[in-house]
Amino acid sequence: MTKQTRASAAVARNENEIAHWERSTDVLIVGLGGAGVCAALEASRLGADVLVLERTAAGGGTTALSGGLIYCGGGTSVQKACGFEDSPEEMFKYLMAACGPGPDETKIRLYSENSVEHFDWLVAQGVPFRGTFHPESGTEPPTQDGLIFSGSENAYPFSEIAKPAARGHHPAKEGAAGGFFMQKLLAALHKTNVTVQCNASCQSLVIDRDGAVVGAIVRIDQKEIAIRARRGVILAAGGFVNNKEMLRRYAPELLRCRFRVGCEGDDGSGIRMGLGAGADAIRMHAGSISLPYYPPKQLKKGILINRQGQRFINEDVYYGRAGEYALLRQEGKAYLIVDDEIYAKPLGGMELVAVGETASEIETTLGLAPGSLQSTLDFYNTHAARGEDPLFHKGKTELKPLTQAPLGALDLTCEKAIYAVFTLGGLRTAIDGEVFNPDGRMIPGLYAAGRTTSGLCAQGYSSGLSIADATYFGRRAGMAAAKNDTKKS
Amino acid sequence: MTKQTRASAAVARNENEIAHWERSTDVLIVGLGGAGVCAALEASRLGADVLVLERTAAGGGTTALSGGLIYCGGGTSVQKACGFEDSPEEMFKYLMAACGPGPDETKIRLYSENSVEHFDWLVAQGVPFRGTFHPESGTEPPTQDGLIFSGSENAYPFSEIAKPAARGHHPAKEGAAGGFFMQKLLAALHKTNVTVQCNASCQSLVIDRDGAVVGAIVRIDQKEIAIRARRGVILAAGGFVNNKEMLRRYAPELLRCRFRVGCEGDDGSGIRMGLGAGADAIRMHAGSISLPYYPPKQLKKGILINRQGQRFINEDVYYGRAGEYALLRQEGKAYLIVDDEIYAKPLGGMELVAVGETASEIETTLGLAPGSLQSTLDFYNTHAARGEDPLFHKGKTELKPLTQAPLGALDLTCEKAIYAVFTLGGLRTAIDGEVFNPDGRMIPGLYAAGRTTSGLCAQGYSSGLSIADATYFGRRAGMAAAKNDTKKS
Repeated sequence: MTKQTRASAAVARNENEIAHWERSTDVLIVGLGGAGVCAALEASRLGADVLVLERTAAGGGTTALSGGLIYCGGGTSVQKACGFEDSPEEMFKYLMAACGPGPDETKIRLYSENSVEHFDWLVAQGVPFRGTFHPESGTEPPTQDGLIFSGSENAYPFSEIAKPAARGHHPAKEGAAGGFFMQKLLAALHKTNVTVQCNASCQSLVIDRDGAVVGAIVRIDQKEIAIRARRGVILAAGGFVNNKEMLRRYAPELLRCRFRVGCEGDDGSGIRMGLGAGADAIRMHAGSISLPYYPPKQLKKGILINRQGQRFINEDVYYGRAGEYALLRQEGKAYLIVDDEIYAKPLGGMELVAVGETASEIETTLGLAPGSLQSTLDFYNTHAARGEDPLFHKGKTELKPLTQAPLGALDLTCEKAIYAVFTLGGLRTAIDGEVFNPDGRMIPGLYAAGRTTSGLCAQGYSSGLSIADATYFGRRAGMAAAKNDTKKS
Repeated sequence: MTKQTRASAAVARNENEIAHWERSTDVLIVGLGGAGVCAALEASRLGADVLVLERTAAGGGTTALSGGLIYCGGGTSVQKACGFEDSPEEMFKYLMAACGPGPDETKIRLYSENSVEHFDWLVAQGVPFRGTFHPESGTEPPTQDGLIFSGSENAYPFSEIAKPAARGHHPAKEGAAGGFFMQKLLAALHKTNVTVQCNASCQSLVIDRDGAVVGAIVRIDQKEIAIRARRGVILAAGGFVNNKEMLRRYAPELLRCRFRVGCEGDDGSGIRMGLGAGADAIRMHAGSISLPYYPPKQLKKGILINRQGQRFINEDVYYGRAGEYALLRQEGKAYLIVDDEIYAKPLGGMELVAVGETASEIETTLGLAPGSLQSTLDFYNTHAARGEDPLFHKGKTELKPLTQAPLGALDLTCEKAIYAVFTLGGLRTAIDGEVFNPDGRMIPGLYAAGRTTSGLCAQGYSSGLSIADATYFGRRAGMAAAKNDTKKS
């Protein structure tokens, strides 16, 4: 029926080439990760006949491989139980400052206003959360604690822009909870009459003569069939961090990072199918870039320096922000300078590559200009002793002079350290998942969610935002597709 | 015949909707700027029937508004006359280092190898160049001199990567020579039998049922007509710097810059028409960002500082590289610190916003952390006195201690200074202008060149590269389209 290979996902097929629709459904969902499962739950709730295609043998997607943090706020029950005051407005202000440059204000506004409802919905689907706060930020709690700081809320300049509140919600499961989270959502899905077809690889979309999406070509058991979607197709097939050719083309800086956060399916097929049906893609160079130089949190008391021995950021920010600055602004060349008092091996495994009684010895070992690190340390230590950081405004609790010899340097260069990346660019969508074409018109019958789209984060990332975006806007896409009656059925 | 408005350029029309082809040609070229005129000259030379559509009353495009520098090298007659040794290999090494991250190696290799031929071709079309070198870099010569340094060839790290050679070729016309340059090329065009249709606005492409481009819908005299292209359509319609909505969507950082280098036609219509026919666009966030803090060249002896009072680049680089660093890495917040010995008003018109006998006074006026600029100056001056810049490796001739009071600060913040920008992202093309779809296949019958494409520069820019790219790859697109016989005529 088709000569297209699996790698060729983009070009849409014309309806008049389809001799036979082997199956049909109201809503066809491509991908059973965090976005797909939520889309399916909501479309089904509204009475739609739903078929989910999953390329692997079981659902889960990258969400199941993740730490499972979900960024929620505005006053969730867990936030209240932990004693945090929050409001949609404060959440909005934080996200607008942290998700740029050029964040999607409409989506951020909407999610900030509806985040409590979304959190309650996740709970109603069976995802448990405890009302306990875990004080160590920057990674999923090793406990079942339900809340952590997962962004830069407490750090400059965000702490001055919006009232800080912890918003990283962690399902009641020790450590990485993404698998647990997806298990609960998939269990909820199994109670519906949604059909899940595993080992089914969507090859391309099918469009009618007006450009509306009316179905898809799907490979199941070595055979390609056409599946008709009466109300809409939802692309929820992940990002493209595992497609090197796409990274080279759109986001070459991410290609330098060896640790790619994604499942096999994050090969960009969803984005390419969208493009092939006339969609617009935006922010294709953007990525989340995590550089976990802490925990342990005492390492925030060190200083991050570049090849000039200069500091370049307040070290108490979310390490995803620090990673972005290190990779994109410092060519991925950075070190964390510590003294003996605070030294510890970071969980991220960065190597200690220089040890010395003086800054000068560190400079020599690292090949920094003589006096450069010394000058930086002199300035930093003088002010840190007074609890001040006039250059980058690191918080008082993380400030201490680095004076207890020996000093050490942890290697944070891109080729040596973990820079954990995934893509943030993708199809441009409206708030209900409708996919825009480059003219700004919506493509009838086409929806998308999760990392197949550009979502809440244009560029800057805080942990838990990708799952929040995928699940919340996945739900909206599911509802919108279920209600879409613009097409003849 | 159509309900599309002028702003809606993306969606391609289907051939079977076309009741009547009012005109036909072998090669249809959209836009008569630097890329379009060269495409037309070459397609015509190969015997093709060529029609060029120009939206305004006369051709020229952004090339005609520009300084008219063309980046050529590898040993042109002008380089030789000026005493510069150059080779394709050295040019290649420079461009690979300067046009990234992720430059298009294939295009850079090809252009480096064929740049001498291309230069000679321009001369043969009637563009005169003098074999004289102008020693002041960074802007078009006020004289008729034919050659200047127009990039960072002489600056670190490029001077260590490739043997420096001046490659900015300036037509024999005082000052900005873009208008003169286009005049000569248009005069050459008028000697051919190419048809130029002015006041003709291309609305959308027309594709056949296999997705091949077979023509275009064009508005002439308030009327839309269909024009058939038997061999191909070449999109040479400029970039999108004058489309605020597209900037917001794809390149929000450029939107902050008030000085946009482009003609009215740089509204992205070429890119959107390509997208609407199934094309891939890449590097849509990228731009050339010029921050002309010199000439006069003595200002390179100042130091560029950020909001932390730190230096962030060697000040003798091409000011387009400094502008990129200032905008993208320093949030567009920078100052040039000078002393009384070197102070001059920059041609770029930046304002002196602080004057003081000491660094401390400058810090107070600018709101920098006390001691921060002093610390930077201490380190810089100590080394500059020895002819050294261990941090950023500024060249010896630009190094001098900034010790002659009073000191001053020129305001280079984005909202106050000239950041002159144009877009570098666009359609992804092969070396003969063939346009790729997101699967990496070529769209039959569709070609593109100039700023409608992503060309030699993925991101980093040197002056003269955009015209070089537009004219050279415009020529190749013209030849390829003229020879394209894959379609039935």
